[in-house]
Amino acid sequence: MVPRYARPEMSALWEPEAKFRIWFEIEAHATQKLGEMGVVPESAGQALWDWWATNPKIDVEAIDAIEAVTKHDVIAFLTWVAEQVGDEARFMHQGMTSSDVLDTTLSVQLARATDILMADLDALLAAIKKRAEEHKYTPTIGRSHGIHAEPVTFGLKLAQAYAEFDRCRDRLIAARKEIATCAVSGAVGTFANIDPEVEAYVAEQLGLEIEPVSTQVIPRDRHAMYFSTLAVIAGSIERLAVEVRHLQRTEVLEAEEYFSPGQKGSSAMPHKRNPILTENLTGQARMIRAYALPALENVALWHERDISHSSVERFIGPDSTITLDFALARLTGVVEKLLIYPERMQANLDAMGGLVHSQRVLLALTQAGVSREDAYRLVQRNAMKVWESNGALSLLDLLKSDDEVTAALSASELEEKFDLAYHFKHVDTIFARVFG
Amino acid sequence: MVPRYARPEMSALWEPEAKFRIWFEIEAHATQKLGEMGVVPESAGQALWDWWATNPKIDVEAIDAIEAVTKHDVIAFLTWVAEQVGDEARFMHQGMTSSDVLDTTLSVQLARATDILMADLDALLAAIKKRAEEHKYTPTIGRSHGIHAEPVTFGLKLAQAYAEFDRCRDRLIAARKEIATCAVSGAVGTFANIDPEVEAYVAEQLGLEIEPVSTQVIPRDRHAMYFSTLAVIAGSIERLAVEVRHLQRTEVLEAEEYFSPGQKGSSAMPHKRNPILTENLTGQARMIRAYALPALENVALWHERDISHSSVERFIGPDSTITLDFALARLTGVVEKLLIYPERMQANLDAMGGLVHSQRVLLALTQAGVSREDAYRLVQRNAMKVWESNGALSLLDLLKSDDEVTAALSASELEEKFDLAYHFKHVDTIFARVFG
Amino acid sequence: MVPRYARPEMSALWEPEAKFRIWFEIEAHATQKLGEMGVVPESAGQALWDWWATNPKIDVEAIDAIEAVTKHDVIAFLTWVAEQVGDEARFMHQGMTSSDVLDTTLSVQLARATDILMADLDALLAAIKKRAEEHKYTPTIGRSHGIHAEPVTFGLKLAQAYAEFDRCRDRLIAARKEIATCAVSGAVGTFANIDPEVEAYVAEQLGLEIEPVSTQVIPRDRHAMYFSTLAVIAGSIERLAVEVRHLQRTEVLEAEEYFSPGQKGSSAMPHKRNPILTENLTGQARMIRAYALPALENVALWHERDISHSSVERFIGPDSTITLDFALARLTGVVEKLLIYPERMQANLDAMGGLVHSQRVLLALTQAGVSREDAYRLVQRNAMKVWESNGALSLLDLLKSDDEVTAALSASELEEKFDLAYHFKHVDTIFARVFG
Amino acid sequence: MVPRYARPEMSALWEPEAKFRIWFEIEAHATQKLGEMGVVPESAGQALWDWWATNPKIDVEAIDAIEAVTKHDVIAFLTWVAEQVGDEARFMHQGMTSSDVLDTTLSVQLARATDILMADLDALLAAIKKRAEEHKYTPTIGRSHGIHAEPVTFGLKLAQAYAEFDRCRDRLIAARKEIATCAVSGAVGTFANIDPEVEAYVAEQLGLEIEPVSTQVIPRDRHAMYFSTLAVIAGSIERLAVEVRHLQRTEVLEAEEYFSPGQKGSSAMPHKRNPILTENLTGQARMIRAYALPALENVALWHERDISHSSVERFIGPDSTITLDFALARLTGVVEKLLIYPERMQANLDAMGGLVHSQRVLLALTQAGVSREDAYRLVQRNAMKVWESNGALSLLDLLKSDDEVTAALSASELEEKFDLAYHFKHVDTIFARVFG
Repeated sequence: MVPRYARPEMSALWEPEAKFRIWFEIEAHATQKLGEMGVVPESAGQALWDWWATNPKIDVEAIDAIEAVTKHDVIAFLTWVAEQVGDEARFMHQGMTSSDVLDTTLSVQLARATDILMADLDALLAAIKKRAEEHKYTPTIGRSHGIHAEPVTFGLKLAQAYAEFDRCRDRLIAARKEIATCAVSGAVGTFANIDPEVEAYVAEQLGLEIEPVSTQVIPRDRHAMYFSTLAVIAGSIERLAVEVRHLQRTEVLEAEEYFSPGQKGSSAMPHKRNPILTENLTGQARMIRAYALPALENVALWHERDISHSSVERFIGPDSTITLDFALARLTGVVEKLLIYPERMQANLDAMGGLVHSQRVLLALTQAGVSREDAYRLVQRNAMKVWESNGALSLLDLLKSDDEVTAALSASELEEKFDLAYHFKHVDTIFARVFG
Repeated sequence: MVPRYARPEMSALWEPEAKFRIWFEIEAHATQKLGEMGVVPESAGQALWDWWATNPKIDVEAIDAIEAVTKHDVIAFLTWVAEQVGDEARFMHQGMTSSDVLDTTLSVQLARATDILMADLDALLAAIKKRAEEHKYTPTIGRSHGIHAEPVTFGLKLAQAYAEFDRCRDRLIAARKEIATCAVSGAVGTFANIDPEVEAYVAEQLGLEIEPVSTQVIPRDRHAMYFSTLAVIAGSIERLAVEVRHLQRTEVLEAEEYFSPGQKGSSAMPHKRNPILTENLTGQARMIRAYALPALENVALWHERDISHSSVERFIGPDSTITLDFALARLTGVVEKLLIYPERMQANLDAMGGLVHSQRVLLALTQAGVSREDAYRLVQRNAMKVWESNGALSLLDLLKSDDEVTAALSASELEEKFDLAYHFKHVDTIFARVFG
Repeated sequence: MVPRYARPEMSALWEPEAKFRIWFEIEAHATQKLGEMGVVPESAGQALWDWWATNPKIDVEAIDAIEAVTKHDVIAFLTWVAEQVGDEARFMHQGMTSSDVLDTTLSVQLARATDILMADLDALLAAIKKRAEEHKYTPTIGRSHGIHAEPVTFGLKLAQAYAEFDRCRDRLIAARKEIATCAVSGAVGTFANIDPEVEAYVAEQLGLEIEPVSTQVIPRDRHAMYFSTLAVIAGSIERLAVEVRHLQRTEVLEAEEYFSPGQKGSSAMPHKRNPILTENLTGQARMIRAYALPALENVALWHERDISHSSVERFIGPDSTITLDFALARLTGVVEKLLIYPERMQANLDAMGGLVHSQRVLLALTQAGVSREDAYRLVQRNAMKVWESNGALSLLDLLKSDDEVTAALSASELEEKFDLAYHFKHVDTIFARVFG
Repeated sequence: MVPRYARPEMSALWEPEAKFRIWFEIEAHATQKLGEMGVVPESAGQALWDWWATNPKIDVEAIDAIEAVTKHDVIAFLTWVAEQVGDEARFMHQGMTSSDVLDTTLSVQLARATDILMADLDALLAAIKKRAEEHKYTPTIGRSHGIHAEPVTFGLKLAQAYAEFDRCRDRLIAARKEIATCAVSGAVGTFANIDPEVEAYVAEQLGLEIEPVSTQVIPRDRHAMYFSTLAVIAGSIERLAVEVRHLQRTEVLEAEEYFSPGQKGSSAMPHKRNPILTENLTGQARMIRAYALPALENVALWHERDISHSSVERFIGPDSTITLDFALARLTGVVEKLLIYPERMQANLDAMGGLVHSQRVLLALTQAGVSREDAYRLVQRNAMKVWESNGALSLLDLLKSDDEVTAALSASELEEKFDLAYHFKHVDTIFARVFG
């Protein structure tokens, strides 16, 4: 975790105190249920919750000090709780194994992390939608291979991003389901010393599903799927970030990351406004993708469990969710405040002297009865002049002055082929598909 | 693609002929719809389908020869079709762009590949279920960290695998939805020269959804999610493969990959039966995981597309699906024919002289009123003797001869603590959860 | 392996025939040495080499047919050789294990593959050097964050690429040493049934080092390092490819992948010359990087070996080397024939009206005694006018007309600050560092 | 960075204070050289070093507070230094760009980190060597595929590990050279405003090489190679860790991670000593490998630099080196204190009733004139009895009682075939190769 790429709400989830609070809840719910079932005194659960109701401070240092002696984190915690609650606390953890607590806690943390990420995505989607509607019909050049192709609108570019992040939202919902399970099934998952009803009760209280069959641990294919999904979302972040970086290039400059009016770029160089937020996002995307790999390698634990997954998850649990939270929020800020320059978009569109319309002219000539070969020759000889002038000449003007062309198409027919509206007639349809 | 790790049905999907057949279908459906809409003569689509009804051979070499001249694969194909069909074929591809054909074809290939993978998974699930039911109550030692923990049944191990591959099945269904989309939207996705109805028609005919908003291409976050899902499935394959490899170790030998009775291992060394199929699967899993990475990097194409994804997909499209198909089928064979040795499982269970039951005895002593400290001391002094005898002594026997122990627990009470049935009382519940 | 991304010389290395030829050489060298040592008859090695001198065709199909029966590739090969050579061949493989042949063969294949890659790198370096010298002093704008920064020369860009690939060359030499080892040490590496002298002899004949200590196999950290090195080279390929893609963008167009004069881009759109070769290289780089991952996972084989590495290497051995060979050759072609447009570079340099020189003016003003704050204000007020004119105004002209500025700096002093030569005074030094 | 997997010396390298100290040194060395060259007053460098000689505390908070205003880390630092040193400090950073400081600092940090890693490797090598010599001739079974193969010694296993980490040491030396370079070359690497002599001087003072040609930054292929090398080392760590995990399995138990005599495993279960350190190392190895990936993606920065590498390096710079340092030290501890059980090794060796020697008997029979088919039949019929007895019968005993066998080989000849010394005759040779 890099502090400058962390936001407080998400980071707090991964603090020791947050973890211990979830540990307590799991233990207390289990003890309460065991009390109802007559396995332990009913007073035990009550004592735990009564203490909890006093909103006690979790003394992380004290717990760590006990762990330094016991060399066991869960026992250290139980010991500390027992010191606070008193004798009734000895019924805690009956029939359970440490992993019941640790794994279910990870489920709760990841589920809560996902809720934050979901809110992040919703904010991003709202920001993209707003800008898409603003620029629904702002013409700009579509580019394939970095080369001018045919006109699109800036709104369409954003509609594409919206649809992509909307898919990410669906994926995140599915990913949350993957990891929102609860196991309270004992040392090797057989419920030898604890009834499955306890698991069901704890799961319900924590808003989790029961794990149908666990070993000592919740199976790690779930987590592999979860972190892989975050990796895909990172890919989509990178895509929009790279788009902004391209648009902000000096020669393109169709959009820019926000800078305040007073800010005026770097020192005396007003052109030096760097897309550093989106470059930064590009790097963060690389990290979030990388974190999926060890999660995939974690799946093949030995037999009923080995603990190799644990060190991995101490890294990627926080690092992946905290960084993605930060990145989504940063991207939302970039989109909300993006400086968009329609005039420059139009200027770039026009920069090639209308060459982007050559395809339509070609088609029109054929439809007007010119042979394909002749049509091609006519368009090409004018297009080449425009190209060689580096866009100083206008293809439309040249075509209007070419007798062979005007023999087939009138000036107004030619002008109609240069009409951007032709390209945008289905924008509404696409927006309806995307935004409903 | 490595031929020895390829099965014919899946490989055939990725052969040039299969690709060209899909190309034709897309073009013909589009032409037919354009005919219905009056954009091209209705006879055009008819001519294409009439020719198709003759079940023509696709002459891959002839098409390649044309491509060698035109340097454009789609044009080469259209030219060859036109040579076969005649004049009416010139209406094909009207308003479309190459990517409309190429990307929709990839969708069809991946969707069909997924159908094969789904059948593979079903076969694997059936095989696992059958063996799980056979060994529902076959006792075996559960291991954490490779060390004996508490008893489980071999059926439970398989139930775990079943539940895991059942989740893989759900993931594969979701992954199929990700990539089963159709784009027929023109050079930059604006439908400038083709009506969205054509896309809708082609999609319906091919069993695909329409892509709500495409650029020149179908967005690659879909494919990233698809190949990441295959990577997760590979992780689960590795997990079961590693389990078999562990069980087949000389010292464990609780199960073995099948060898025919006549086969008798390697030469004169009957113990030398190597788990080569599952080792092989382990390596294949590494490959399938690796293929997800470039798919993730493919997401951030520049603007409306760059073609960097294409070379990646020429590799991973076939390599990932063909290898996963092979691996699933190989794993199914391993499971179906796995030699399972219940006696050896029991022997291993017993090898530690009953130490795996020490926890239960400890609990029973406490419940019988012995202080926790005393109970611990009593169990430990007997357990250590067993341990030092390397399992030659029996913990139960020693406990029965320990007066302090028998003062609290009778012989029959002690015996009851060594009863495996205690551990298996919820096996039925777990099976019901997993197999329904 | 994707045929369109494969070149014949490298592909041939990975054909079955090439593999069998190396197998034979290993077996024959070992047999000969064993003969010299009196372990087998001296006539045995002689018989093998005599047959080999007849330049026999390797009948891959016949060998495969035997393998279909024996289920063992090395035995199948030995059987086939024995059929050809006769009785003397039965002394082959004495005291050896299959891995001695298989692993040493992989070493030979990778070493030979590396020799091809080394030649590829040399050709690439030569191409870069030639173009670098041509454009040693061709001014172009240096860009950070995609934004104009300060002038560089196109030769410097290429010098950077040269230095990078020269480092790749050193890395490849080191990588070759990693994998160019020979193991002929028997079933678990103890030389139980074969003398280390045989290994030394075979190694020497094949131009390999002996493996100081092998298990059943040559340790896979060597291969992990090898394929990781190829991954780094792929990263450098991507870097230069991305540079070309950027330079070819419509708005930048400072360089272009070659197209023949007759070719004139795609149909009637002369601007539509796409950097498809470098986009293609970008995708290939992703694959070569991905192949390093399973090689890294291969390191931790179990005990004296498991065979999980084998399926991985059947993929990445050919795929990684063949694709890198292709990519290096393709990149060399791109560099050799790259269309470079100095006028456009100059035009882009000038497009910001001289703003790239503002830093130097600022410094000069301070050195002329203007306070830092005043200097900044003076430069900025002129720079902003240029910026708002979108480069139509000239910073130099404006400064010359600004009385406060000219009070400190004369017109000629100002002009000197706009001199590109100032930036290039150390180009020669840098070239000397890079090209020697 | 996960605190529990971090050691203080390495962590300190990545603390803000350490970074600022290096920044100061670079700036002060550059200023001093500029003074010698007459570019700035000689007093400037002197003033900086005089202040430094007072061993001033670096006030990280104060610097951060300035950065919060200036939004620029290097400027914030320079401002703070100027506040301490006074007027002379304004000559700092003359002609330099932020990256000159940042990138050279990263070089220093990575070089120093590597020195720590090198010491770690040396300690690990020493530990392995010591244990290897102790167990040079301790017999143990060699395993391929997890199955008993032929005898090796435990010392040989460790010799293999020694040779592997010795290669890692060479790789680390090469990796250090990769990143130990210095760039002080200005905004786009042209030395426009600073003489190359300054770079040479700073490099020399810091023990770095000059970067032959930089852009705005030091090229990132160097860092890709560096982090890939750490990934390979992680692979070797995993390999030895996995070996220990296998050896500690209940059924194998040939070695164990150390536990203190008083410790006696988990509670009442003396067999429950888990290899948690090596499992933990396995997970850490996954992370270190994963960190190489984004480093590889960092290579292709745009033009003269984009800043996407920076966020990646804020993660992997510390995380990769800190975790590897921790892992190497932990592994050293594991090796130094490893509990090694020669009796159990011998017992396992014998467990198959001598079947591991069947190959040698087979060979001896053939050499004694028995036909290959007969020899095979004779060995196999006895071997199968041993196998079916699960090792209770002894192959040697059975062979001695088999008349057909004894007709060819005497009892003493047979016994000689079961002599372990036969297998170990070249151990000395191998040790000499490895340990010199």
